[in-house]
Amino acid sequence: MIDPVERAAMARARELGWSALGRTSPNPAVGAVVLDTAGRVVGEGATQPPGGAHAEVVALAQAGERARGGTAVVTLEPCDHTGRTGPCSEALLAASVTRVVVAVPEPTGLAAGGAERLRAAGVDVVLGAERAEAAEGALAPWLLGVRDHRPQVVWKVATTLDGRVAATDGTSRWITGPDARAEVHRLRATCDAVLVGSGTVLVDDPQLTVRDATGADADRQPLRVVLDRRGRVPATARVRDGAAPTHLSSAAGPAALLAELFDRDVRRVLLEGGPTLAAAFLTAGLVDEVVVHLAPQLLGAGPSLVGDLGISTMAAALQLTPLDVTPLGRDVQLRFRPTRHTGGAPQPEETTS
Amino acid sequence: MIDPVERAAMARARELGWSALGRTSPNPAVGAVVLDTAGRVVGEGATQPPGGAHAEVVALAQAGERARGGTAVVTLEPCDHTGRTGPCSEALLAASVTRVVVAVPEPTGLAAGGAERLRAAGVDVVLGAERAEAAEGALAPWLLGVRDHRPQVVWKVATTLDGRVAATDGTSRWITGPDARAEVHRLRATCDAVLVGSGTVLVDDPQLTVRDATGADADRQPLRVVLDRRGRVPATARVRDGAAPTHLSSAAGPAALLAELFDRDVRRVLLEGGPTLAAAFLTAGLVDEVVVHLAPQLLGAGPSLVGDLGISTMAAALQLTPLDVTPLGRDVQLRFRPTRHTGGAPQPEETTS
Ligand SMILES: NC(=O)c1ccc[n+]([C@@H]2O[C@H](COP(=O)([O-])OP(=O)(O)OC[C@H]3O[C@@H](n4cnc5c(N)ncnc54)[C@H](OP(=O)(O)O)[C@@H]3O)[C@@H](O)[C@H]2O)c1
Ligand SMILES: NC(=O)c1ccc[n+]([C@@H]2O[C@H](COP(=O)([O-])OP(=O)(O)OC[C@H]3O[C@@H](n4cnc5c(N)ncnc54)[C@H](OP(=O)(O)O)[C@@H]3O)[C@@H](O)[C@H]2O)c1
Repeated sequence: MIDPVERAAMARARELGWSALGRTSPNPAVGAVVLDTAGRVVGEGATQPPGGAHAEVVALAQAGERARGGTAVVTLEPCDHTGRTGPCSEALLAASVTRVVVAVPEPTGLAAGGAERLRAAGVDVVLGAERAEAAEGALAPWLLGVRDHRPQVVWKVATTLDGRVAATDGTSRWITGPDARAEVHRLRATCDAVLVGSGTVLVDDPQLTVRDATGADADRQPLRVVLDRRGRVPATARVRDGAAPTHLSSAAGPAALLAELFDRDVRRVLLEGGPTLAAAFLTAGLVDEVVVHLAPQLLGAGPSLVGDLGISTMAAALQLTPLDVTPLGRDVQLRFRPTRHTGGAPQPEETTS
Repeated sequence: MIDPVERAAMARARELGWSALGRTSPNPAVGAVVLDTAGRVVGEGATQPPGGAHAEVVALAQAGERARGGTAVVTLEPCDHTGRTGPCSEALLAASVTRVVVAVPEPTGLAAGGAERLRAAGVDVVLGAERAEAAEGALAPWLLGVRDHRPQVVWKVATTLDGRVAATDGTSRWITGPDARAEVHRLRATCDAVLVGSGTVLVDDPQLTVRDATGADADRQPLRVVLDRRGRVPATARVRDGAAPTHLSSAAGPAALLAELFDRDVRRVLLEGGPTLAAAFLTAGLVDEVVVHLAPQLLGAGPSLVGDLGISTMAAALQLTPLDVTPLGRDVQLRFRPTRHTGGAPQPEETTS
């Protein structure tokens, strides 16, 4: 059992994990909070880019002496393994915390044993506190990678109310308003790669970078990926402008492409392609989350949200589980998880704490 | 200015108006609340079916002697005209209320003068209190009829996330779940007529009646209307089962059909047709409200929400103004008002109170 102060600290740790997402792969985006003996937050940390400190170490460094006798609250079990950084279990013992609250147990043999080592040293360890919330949050891409050896795929699409993603003349700027477009840049920033098909490059010539409200490029840019089996993307395409790394792939299909990206340490991909690529990923069961930006407009014609899925009757429709609905200016964001025709992550087990 | 007690009474009066909608045409669906001298609600009323009492008269009858010295709060200016019932202005004077709060001034020459008559008799009258709320609510169909001599058109459509209203084999049962379907029956009950094209009858053979959760027919049924220029609707179609009145029309188009329906005292139509009829009404600028029931499903093929609108570029898309978003089980209801290509009601002026 964890108390309300620890619950609040865990919620903050999950947020810290989100803030790091997109900068930590192939490592998990972990968040950590250190509480002193009075339950005050004295340290916060998130996983640093590869080679940098783990979340617990950042939070402990901030806490300093105030960690002594306190509690560390962390979204993933502290590692017990010396990689590019020393084991976190040791750092926690050195800081003399007396209690460690963990959401998700470490699933890899390599780094496991942190909880055991801490317990052996007399630390009170809670494993599995609010586990589902953490596992479905910023840790999800990494956990999926550990299990399925592929990146998480988030399919994002902007559509009119009648399911059109462009007009018949090819124009699609701008279906959605500024709030929705800003949200896309925030979403991109949480991903290691942004993916489109050659069709989208040829029609829209998108830049696929993360930009702020002024249009300035962010410091860190996700890998731009184009699935271009026939080499149709011209050298003058904006995805080849050097503003961010780009990978032109001729992978045979979604699974092969995801394997390629996984080998490049990509753990979370934003699929921003057109109806052809979206259909290919959906029928392969390789979409983990759907983010729809729905604009209050009707076109009556134009390419549809998704190409042929081989479905000809209502009962066979691809079912999605609604996650949430958020207004974005005049547009609405709807998030879903596919529940059929998908190899996506099953629901994590109930919290055990 | 009206006080918080009167505001609450006006909100209740609007609700009462809604409760009568679908049963009052060609008369307006008015709501009225009577407050006693202490501001307590002592009477509530809504317009009765044609030939029956007006809202104020119902509320005054309920209040009886307690109306003396009190306030009547009513969504529409009391009539000063003896039709099938006596003038409401007289009933208010007979009941000795000393104040009358009105949302919408009477727009027809015939019944106008109620406020003037009351003022002349020394009653304190407020005209235009929360006018926009009432004018956009249950009074909207009637106000539109007075102005444009046509019924209000509410286009309701159930769609998958990718804008499909049926699968390629013609199946469309059930795109949405039980909560959304129950809402359609509630919506139908507020309308004087339910309209489809012959295409929908031939493919779906819908009954188009108002039914409750057990499937039992409601007492009052809206007129079932099929636009069937070529006489394709067979005698065996369920719309011809006698469970409710039915009108098979061969009107040349939306405007001609609405004129026909207006002459039959229809003031509010629920358009439940397929993409062909929806496109015809939208391009004619004859849709006043759009109600979309969006189901968390993908089909990838099948007829679209709306047929060709003659729009080929994004900048020409038909813009809608979002009204609200309501979850209905796993589905979502989105309501809109068309803002272009439409002859729909302009925004009522600001409240003057
Ligand atoms: N509103 C939005 O959110 C949005 C987003 C993106 C695009 N769009 C619109 O979508 C339209 C473009 O649609 P699209 O379908 O052509 O774009 P797309 O799905 O991005 O690209 C399709 C192309 O991807 C390539 N591809 C590579 N591997 C594939 C595989 N395994 N399966 C299928 N395709 C594969 C194919 O070309 P090769 O055979 O040459 O490899 C195919 O022609 C444009 O009008 C654009 O504006 C809208
Ligand atoms: N999901 C939903 O909410 C929903 C609702 C309704 C229908 N649907 C689906 O929609 C499909 C039927 O689509 P639909 O477009 O054929 O149905 P529809 O729009 O209801 O009917 C079209 C027919 O209406 C007649 N019509 C009469 N006057 C017209 C005018 N001025 N302009 C255009 N048409 C006029 C035409 O036949 P005539 O020339 O013979 O008069 C036309 O073929 C079915 O698959 C059904 O399941 C879905």
